[in-house]
Amino acid sequence: MKSFRKELWFEVPSRRGFRNITPQVLDCLRESGIREGLVLCNAMHITASVFINDDESGLHQDFEQWLEELAPHAPISRYQHNNTGEDNGDAHLKRTIMGREVVVAVTAGKLDFGPWEQIFYGEFDGRRRKRVLVKIIGE
Amino acid sequence: MKSFRKELWFEVPSRRGFRNITPQVLDCLRESGIREGLVLCNAMHITASVFINDDESGLHQDFEQWLEELAPHAPISRYQHNNTGEDNGDAHLKRTIMGREVVVAVTAGKLDFGPWEQIFYGEFDGRRRKRVLVKIIGE
Amino acid sequence: MKSFRKELWFEVPSRRGFRNITPQVLDCLRESGIREGLVLCNAMHITASVFINDDESGLHQDFEQWLEELAPHAPISRYQHNNTGEDNGDAHLKRTIMGREVVVAVTAGKLDFGPWEQIFYGEFDGRRRKRVLVKIIGE
Repeated sequence: MKSFRKELWFEVPSRRGFRNITPQVLDCLRESGIREGLVLCNAMHITASVFINDDESGLHQDFEQWLEELAPHAPISRYQHNNTGEDNGDAHLKRTIMGREVVVAVTAGKLDFGPWEQIFYGEFDGRRRKRVLVKIIGE
Repeated sequence: MKSFRKELWFEVPSRRGFRNITPQVLDCLRESGIREGLVLCNAMHITASVFINDDESGLHQDFEQWLEELAPHAPISRYQHNNTGEDNGDAHLKRTIMGREVVVAVTAGKLDFGPWEQIFYGEFDGRRRKRVLVKIIGE
Repeated sequence: MKSFRKELWFEVPSRRGFRNITPQVLDCLRESGIREGLVLCNAMHITASVFINDDESGLHQDFEQWLEELAPHAPISRYQHNNTGEDNGDAHLKRTIMGREVVVAVTAGKLDFGPWEQIFYGEFDGRRRKRVLVKIIGE
């Protein structure tokens, strides 16, 4: 069994944003030399997500608006967590909806994806450097 | 390390519906000959889910009603994504709540499940043929 | 390829509650002797979750309140599932939001975590003994 590990770093300049990280994950897969196995791709921070969906800007606006309805940022006092001096209580909830991680099959050296699947980093408390872990196991 | 891959195809005749796919995943596991490892089972489409819960029809009605409250289908104009000519903006959000994938342990050649765990395909934009990927790695 | 399996048992004395189970998962990892691979950690019950977030009590209160808003426990009659004689319809939905499972990378014999990641058991229908599965594969 082979294994491969790499951290991807991001600094989203606004509080929230989505980045298509499929090219970077593909680079990891090529570098690993693994042909059959599994890729785990997870946010290493608890106010960010890794998820799979469509690379369509209207959809990303829908996600942004929907998450803000389900877990509004303001008022800050809405969240007990913000009593610690943070203002990111909502970001923990938004990331919970979008998910921490994805697991993707590797088949014949490729990400075994349907036609529209793309991997995204979802940032909910940005304006600082944060990391995604890519771990690949297989042969 | 052994690996196994199969696509399961579904055509749900209505827009939304749930299918218990545990028997098909078990067939894959038997066919793979793998006794210890992990099964990844994921929707290959971004408006469908694979999830684990109870095979109880009342619960499935609750899921249907709850998802429609959290991410209503209509009005279509509610979603930017539908400006592309689609009417499935809600389906992307519903699938996000229910999840893209499950990872299940394989122990002694069986799905290592608690008493009520069953695997479901969740369709949110049906009336066409769509796929689930089953990937198994182990020994 | 090595594999390791253990069940962790919990009895939360109230209907709902969160437990940090990172120490028990670490014990499993040490016992397994696996240095590179993946840990799957999942609730074996369909009214409970395993998730990763911050070990901060204010945040846990926020989760509790937020889940109760998204999927209220009462009135019991709100859920078709409760027509079976259960009163835990809400617990199935709350667990869906929080997730069934996490997959964590194992690197150099450690859980490959960001600075604040901790693994939690989330109970939504407690007051009885319930299980979490820890399955580790690797080398």
